[in-house]
Amino acid sequence: MNVQGEAFRTIFLADDGWRVTIIDQTVLPHQFQLLHLSSLSDMATAISDMQVRGAPLIGAAASYGMALAMREDTSDTMLANAYNTLLATRPTAVNLHWALNEMKAVLVAIPESQREQLAYQKAAELCDEDVAICSAIGDHGCQLIESLWEKKKQEKQKEKTTSSAQAVNILTHCNAGWLATVDWGTALSPIYKAHNAGIPVHVWVDETRPRNQGFNLTAWELGQHGVPHTIVVDNVGGHLMQHGQVDMCIVGTDRTTRSGDVCNKIGTYLKALAAFDNHIPFYVALPSPTIDWSIRDGVADIPIEERSSREVTHIVGLTKQGNTEEIQIAPDNSAAINYGFDVTPARLITGLITERGVASRGVNNANSKDDADLEQSLGQLFPEKSSNDNLSLNGSLK
Amino acid sequence: MNVQGEAFRTIFLADDGWRVTIIDQTVLPHQFQLLHLSSLSDMATAISDMQVRGAPLIGAAASYGMALAMREDTSDTMLANAYNTLLATRPTAVNLHWALNEMKAVLVAIPESQREQLAYQKAAELCDEDVAICSAIGDHGCQLIESLWEKKKQEKQKEKTTSSAQAVNILTHCNAGWLATVDWGTALSPIYKAHNAGIPVHVWVDETRPRNQGFNLTAWELGQHGVPHTIVVDNVGGHLMQHGQVDMCIVGTDRTTRSGDVCNKIGTYLKALAAFDNHIPFYVALPSPTIDWSIRDGVADIPIEERSSREVTHIVGLTKQGNTEEIQIAPDNSAAINYGFDVTPARLITGLITERGVASRGVNNANSKDDADLEQSLGQLFPEKSSNDNLSLNGSLK
Repeated sequence: MNVQGEAFRTIFLADDGWRVTIIDQTVLPHQFQLLHLSSLSDMATAISDMQVRGAPLIGAAASYGMALAMREDTSDTMLANAYNTLLATRPTAVNLHWALNEMKAVLVAIPESQREQLAYQKAAELCDEDVAICSAIGDHGCQLIESLWEKKKQEKQKEKTTSSAQAVNILTHCNAGWLATVDWGTALSPIYKAHNAGIPVHVWVDETRPRNQGFNLTAWELGQHGVPHTIVVDNVGGHLMQHGQVDMCIVGTDRTTRSGDVCNKIGTYLKALAAFDNHIPFYVALPSPTIDWSIRDGVADIPIEERSSREVTHIVGLTKQGNTEEIQIAPDNSAAINYGFDVTPARLITGLITERGVASRGVNNANSKDDADLEQSLGQLFPEKSSNDNLSLNGSLK
Repeated sequence: MNVQGEAFRTIFLADDGWRVTIIDQTVLPHQFQLLHLSSLSDMATAISDMQVRGAPLIGAAASYGMALAMREDTSDTMLANAYNTLLATRPTAVNLHWALNEMKAVLVAIPESQREQLAYQKAAELCDEDVAICSAIGDHGCQLIESLWEKKKQEKQKEKTTSSAQAVNILTHCNAGWLATVDWGTALSPIYKAHNAGIPVHVWVDETRPRNQGFNLTAWELGQHGVPHTIVVDNVGGHLMQHGQVDMCIVGTDRTTRSGDVCNKIGTYLKALAAFDNHIPFYVALPSPTIDWSIRDGVADIPIEERSSREVTHIVGLTKQGNTEEIQIAPDNSAAINYGFDVTPARLITGLITERGVASRGVNNANSKDDADLEQSLGQLFPEKSSNDNLSLNGSLK
């Protein structure tokens, strides 16, 4: 998407045709800085230091990390070393494991002499595949936004006022934008597609404490692409919804059960509750690899990462002098706890926007509590995955 | 309550018997600093700069502001000037208006020669009255905490495990502690009473973005008094409730309708939704002057203050060098909006803890949706106020 008027992906080859260029996401939104990585070690550091982050982007970065490793040394030893080094950077990211396995499967099967070239080729393919998935999510989600826009226009006409509908107001939480993927994003992809198609959209961007991905990344990328948006603290969404200022919510997900329970950034559940209480559609955008077909009960069966309390007690920003500095915002002796994610039960979710279409309970029954409808709809989109063979007998982890 | 082991009120006379001492709340939690105010002008600045804040404390401070003014000059001109100057400091605070009217009524009726002495006396009375109200709220609320503690112990016994119940876990939002009043606080008063009585309590303290009163004030005062607590970002509460880590919520309120709709710090509504969804009691502590008997529908009829967007885009904290500094945490060009409060509908509220007792739907029916029960219960506590004469015909503002 656009940065300072120029089209960018989050990861691409430098002009020399072999170094891997990334956007350093740790210094956004205050600085836009490209890094050119030239070794396995560079890439491992970039992932572990979160200069690249977001599950799909981590997978893409790891695959290019394998390519850089093969440029250094095409031996089996290096192949194993690169695989293990990259896997250790973010041990919990599902896409990382998947991308490394894809790369390894291709590379072990061919002679050393072909490995470098094929590694670059396969990494490029995985990136293009991610772009295609995210673009398809955008197309399906864009239709939902367009329907809401048509409905808003019709309602305004019925009111017989001279004022016209302003825009479709969409609330999002955290960053599930193009910065988290190779391009387009997941939750933001439908928004970019709608904006590009001339449908007026306005985005409410949740701050997303404690790491503030909403302000640091989502607001920045929407601003660069020219999408109208307003930043709010995480406490505001309920009030906005009570007062008719939100037409729909779209968020991303880190892991989704076969029943449609959604594990996403901490705080997502609170917004889903508010949307449900105010009859506002709540959508989750997801590439199908984030679906865990082996479990059904997200609250019981998805382990929630507990992160450093320093993310809660300290915060980074720009000083008056223009320096990036970390300050302490909590009392010295208070204990702090930092859960990274929460689980939104399927009963609160209107629909799941996937690359193959939208799983839902049906347009006329958006607030139905019949979870079976949502699970069945998701299963119909992915029949090859949804057979009960993938589910343990008690509906829990195999 | 306690600060560094010593008992404090938020406002009291200095050793010289006439200067008014306050805690500078703008530098908490990183510094504890007392200020000795010696003039009307000092007090007006302290209120408008929020060195003292919290509706009950503002009222108390204004009454001592009148006393300081009378020490300077006991004329009618000064009386009018002091009244107008103090009223202008925080024009929207209800208690400020009320306290100034109380002071003025006493002072205009007596000879100038008695004004200084009587102003000090009346200010002291108003402070003592606030302490008595908050203490009574604490006593009533403490009984609720004690009941939950007994229930937790019994449940543990039934489980026939060797482990025992740990503590009553209470979530609160913003600061409705002794720092917002003269002593005890409103929402925190029951917690202090329980702690002092030896009932094990543990408090989850919401950060309360954007002004972070949870970290800056609530965590600090609980820590100083030795009450076990853990700070969390505002996004975490729902997850805690889903996983049985919250036994009850207690919050304060800025304005309450006769039906029990509660206007409180932005984000309160989201926590009430989560409590309701997880069958956790949600209580609001309130001195009766915050009840607006003239309205019934809080979402429709309570205007919500919109504050400076700078509170959202910037944050204050302690640098590595130990200085207090403000940093920017949002991108340069993103619009921000900052609503100070939201309204929690009565249907989500278990009970209202007042100085005369707890208005509720009854212990066995905590999640009843029958709003009439709550309104009736509140009216029975305040029969002199709840006559329908105070309600406009359409249930809206007179």
